[in-house]
Amino acid sequence: MPDFKKILHTIYEKTKQLSDTGRVATYIPELACVPEDKFGICLLDIEKESYQIGDFDERFSVQSISKVLTLAMAMGLIGEKIWDRVDVEPSGDPFNHLSLLEQENGIPRNPLINAGAIVIADILVSELKNPKKEFLEFVHKVSGDTSISYDEKVAHSEKATGFKNYAAANLLKSYGNLKNDVIKVLDFYFYQCSLSMSCSQLCNTFYLFINRGKCLKNYDFLTVSQVKRINAIMLTCGFYDEAGEFAFEVGLPGKSGVGGGIVALLPRKFCVAVWSPGLNPKGNSTRGMAALERLTTLSDLSIF
Amino acid sequence: MPDFKKILHTIYEKTKQLSDTGRVATYIPELACVPEDKFGICLLDIEKESYQIGDFDERFSVQSISKVLTLAMAMGLIGEKIWDRVDVEPSGDPFNHLSLLEQENGIPRNPLINAGAIVIADILVSELKNPKKEFLEFVHKVSGDTSISYDEKVAHSEKATGFKNYAAANLLKSYGNLKNDVIKVLDFYFYQCSLSMSCSQLCNTFYLFINRGKCLKNYDFLTVSQVKRINAIMLTCGFYDEAGEFAFEVGLPGKSGVGGGIVALLPRKFCVAVWSPGLNPKGNSTRGMAALERLTTLSDLSIF
Amino acid sequence: MPDFKKILHTIYEKTKQLSDTGRVATYIPELACVPEDKFGICLLDIEKESYQIGDFDERFSVQSISKVLTLAMAMGLIGEKIWDRVDVEPSGDPFNHLSLLEQENGIPRNPLINAGAIVIADILVSELKNPKKEFLEFVHKVSGDTSISYDEKVAHSEKATGFKNYAAANLLKSYGNLKNDVIKVLDFYFYQCSLSMSCSQLCNTFYLFINRGKCLKNYDFLTVSQVKRINAIMLTCGFYDEAGEFAFEVGLPGKSGVGGGIVALLPRKFCVAVWSPGLNPKGNSTRGMAALERLTTLSDLSIF
Amino acid sequence: MPDFKKILHTIYEKTKQLSDTGRVATYIPELACVPEDKFGICLLDIEKESYQIGDFDERFSVQSISKVLTLAMAMGLIGEKIWDRVDVEPSGDPFNHLSLLEQENGIPRNPLINAGAIVIADILVSELKNPKKEFLEFVHKVSGDTSISYDEKVAHSEKATGFKNYAAANLLKSYGNLKNDVIKVLDFYFYQCSLSMSCSQLCNTFYLFINRGKCLKNYDFLTVSQVKRINAIMLTCGFYDEAGEFAFEVGLPGKSGVGGGIVALLPRKFCVAVWSPGLNPKGNSTRGMAALERLTTLSDLSIF
Repeated sequence: MPDFKKILHTIYEKTKQLSDTGRVATYIPELACVPEDKFGICLLDIEKESYQIGDFDERFSVQSISKVLTLAMAMGLIGEKIWDRVDVEPSGDPFNHLSLLEQENGIPRNPLINAGAIVIADILVSELKNPKKEFLEFVHKVSGDTSISYDEKVAHSEKATGFKNYAAANLLKSYGNLKNDVIKVLDFYFYQCSLSMSCSQLCNTFYLFINRGKCLKNYDFLTVSQVKRINAIMLTCGFYDEAGEFAFEVGLPGKSGVGGGIVALLPRKFCVAVWSPGLNPKGNSTRGMAALERLTTLSDLSIF
Repeated sequence: MPDFKKILHTIYEKTKQLSDTGRVATYIPELACVPEDKFGICLLDIEKESYQIGDFDERFSVQSISKVLTLAMAMGLIGEKIWDRVDVEPSGDPFNHLSLLEQENGIPRNPLINAGAIVIADILVSELKNPKKEFLEFVHKVSGDTSISYDEKVAHSEKATGFKNYAAANLLKSYGNLKNDVIKVLDFYFYQCSLSMSCSQLCNTFYLFINRGKCLKNYDFLTVSQVKRINAIMLTCGFYDEAGEFAFEVGLPGKSGVGGGIVALLPRKFCVAVWSPGLNPKGNSTRGMAALERLTTLSDLSIF
Repeated sequence: MPDFKKILHTIYEKTKQLSDTGRVATYIPELACVPEDKFGICLLDIEKESYQIGDFDERFSVQSISKVLTLAMAMGLIGEKIWDRVDVEPSGDPFNHLSLLEQENGIPRNPLINAGAIVIADILVSELKNPKKEFLEFVHKVSGDTSISYDEKVAHSEKATGFKNYAAANLLKSYGNLKNDVIKVLDFYFYQCSLSMSCSQLCNTFYLFINRGKCLKNYDFLTVSQVKRINAIMLTCGFYDEAGEFAFEVGLPGKSGVGGGIVALLPRKFCVAVWSPGLNPKGNSTRGMAALERLTTLSDLSIF
Repeated sequence: MPDFKKILHTIYEKTKQLSDTGRVATYIPELACVPEDKFGICLLDIEKESYQIGDFDERFSVQSISKVLTLAMAMGLIGEKIWDRVDVEPSGDPFNHLSLLEQENGIPRNPLINAGAIVIADILVSELKNPKKEFLEFVHKVSGDTSISYDEKVAHSEKATGFKNYAAANLLKSYGNLKNDVIKVLDFYFYQCSLSMSCSQLCNTFYLFINRGKCLKNYDFLTVSQVKRINAIMLTCGFYDEAGEFAFEVGLPGKSGVGGGIVALLPRKFCVAVWSPGLNPKGNSTRGMAALERLTTLSDLSIF
């Protein structure tokens, strides 16, 4: 194992000097208020040793990163049946997710784009009595941290403005690929996205994916095969239409969110979470991408 | 003028013998109950002489034909400003109207596809105090017939199942091209589509478009220029992705609806309404298309 | 009939004053040399009375206008069989003609877009012994003018640079919708587009389409039904993705070319040709569009 | 390291029993003649130990697998400048590669789809004096095997029928993203695709990509960073629109060809080549996919 402490320090200092720190997302009004100079990193290795720097302990809105967690929960609940309703191919197209949905008759390309995550949310709403409560309990167990919670302000903010998600859910419904009421599914979806977590908490939660399905406290949540598949989906689909770029520049499975967080991981070695709210034009954290690229270069560790 | 009485008779008999009468629309549950053997024609010439045959006097759900009437009312209210929010090009594409909307940043291709008609509905909801009531009054005045009304069952049926329209309206909203609340606009839109009219009533209403903007009772509703433009839009955009085919086979401006109605017209000569509920795969009345093709062949009258 | 002499004079003077005269096409190098201030109009009425102004007698490259003539010739040769290989719907999409071809398995949307015209060229190459010679003879007969000829420089210029047409022809070939050799078909196609004609000559040639298939010298070339159909296609497909706009603003069937020419016509009344080399962003002559809009406004004549 | 000998034996026997062996590609006439029951596997580990079974030593047409080798050669020649002309994102779309090219103004999605590989071919044609000869020498050096050669029959067969590739090259040319003559570039491209190699030879050649850029004979051909990037591109783009599925089911970077070959690899551990000519509907070897899925399951080795 490389000297992660030193590497994190170097990355942090170098990346902080970047002149372009991207732009904070404004499409969810509540997210627009986050100070753009926040920047934190946490890395947790397979031996449960952790390294951190900057605002690693401050909570932020994980947004799309939550899609990996709902996917994991849904796989645990209904297994391979998920793949009747959502595919595993990269979406490729930057701008027309709904048109892909139309062309492909209501089967979303993968579970990490919005339409796919809404189908996963629909599955959880079908399978769980109290989806919001039970999903949060799932996150508590996986992370071993019961302090993690939703940010209701963010959830309400998106509920009032997330028209593209309403469009996607209604389109899914028109193709028969949404079993529950649109409003009910999106209520859960907006809460799921509003999960508020720090870089440390994200590392603790994603430890599962580097440890063959066993969480920090050693409970089994997923099979080895399920973990491999989720990691594969993160690699090919985790960064919107910049998935190829991330694989090319960083070379790790991961998932980003418009709150400015990115989680990435090297199976059986480490997971890492970075947070910096400024986004690049493709919707991924500018400093987060730069930091992770430096990490795989300096550590000479990647899946490739 | 040709002998319309004889021509209508010939058309009616020949078309009735067609073995393929298409399939009644089922996507709005309430429409699926209409008996598929209904068939009526009415033709009204510029001299106000009318000719009819079959079920010409029975009311049916005009559906998309209403889009021409809301467009006319909106043009009367705000004039050319309409074209800032909706284009006048044929949509071309059979299957992915939402993707066109995405590619073109929320500006619908034309006011006769659903997304465009929803923008027009939004304009009426903005401009009118009581849109449902005032639009119905407009139809009463243009047609000179106060017995025309909405079919609430059809309106509710579509309200409960029209997910693609909810998707379109939310997508428009996400692009800022819907000023009012989605639910409010669609409530009006579903009522507008539920207008229940007979072939005779449709001819009386569309007389306006063959008479340079003056209705049956000689009131002015539109300018000559506005009528020409609406007629042009009907020709290029009135038949979903079969507009070219209709221009090619029939050669008249017109508009169809999934209720099985078609209105077509020759400016300064006549307008004609046909009703037969069975639709072809493109969503236009099978016998309606055949009857109108025979009409322009037998009468040797078309705009071309 | 209105006073066309006076109307043409008014149109010419008003349109000449337009500050924006568009930009001369440069993608065919040879066309880029044409002086951009050229401007001529000719109108020929059904009584064979003609009116002209400006550079009405100067020849220019008709380019896509020739597609109407090859279509007419092909319809005369093989009739309705054409429609097995090309559709009659507007293409709608501004930018991705090849993608439509892919989506629709090699059947071009209509015979007036490039891919469709290449299929028509292929038909002529199959049907004729000496396609270039025989097509020119056809134009000579229809127009009654044997001085019309190809511009070999323009043909060679496009042959050396028309890569999108090579792409389209090869794509057609890959779908089995091109029977002859790509190079052979495109050789004919580039010659056809290089036809050099004046506004007067265009009017003489297109007289056929206002006179129910009979040319100036009263020979029959097309049936009434064929003429109606070609006129319908011109209306819905004659102006690239500005067909709806042209129907809306002008209200006449017509066809434009990147040489800056436009022909338009009112069946049984008149045909008109305008030439001004500067194009708008959609590829249609800027002053040509403006002149024709004025013509239908001032004459109060349109198909609508 | 697992017992590869035993694993290969198990895989071979199990996969041979599959009832669906796919369909041999027929679009290149010369490939259609290959007997569909051919089936071979070779695995070479980082210690240069090799394991093989079945028709591992018989040569077949590597087709698209060659794209990885031309990419490697081009990266060695001009480095990062490649990425000005081709992107690194998965193409996503199964059916309309040319339309993506249109939408994205002539920049292919990645170097492993045909359009991207044609750009790479263009780079080699620009950089090399005798591209066919020098590329073959490159393959000889990397593999340490001078017996590898082109199959001229296959090259000519594709030259006479590869219309989609002519379409792609001309489209690239129209966007200025092809510097050399279309015919010249495609001549090289068809030869490159006709490379004839056995599973053993493919393993020897791809050893480079598991050994950080050093070939079997320990010469340096690529930097560590270049190898990582090519491996990343293979993972996200190596299997047409089944890349996500392959990552999900197999979890290794790799590349398939319509000749029925697949190469896959685990960096710093092993590379493996499988050959079975029958393809699945997405164009990847049916038995090849099944065999590789079994390999990563039985060996419990994958990048995830």
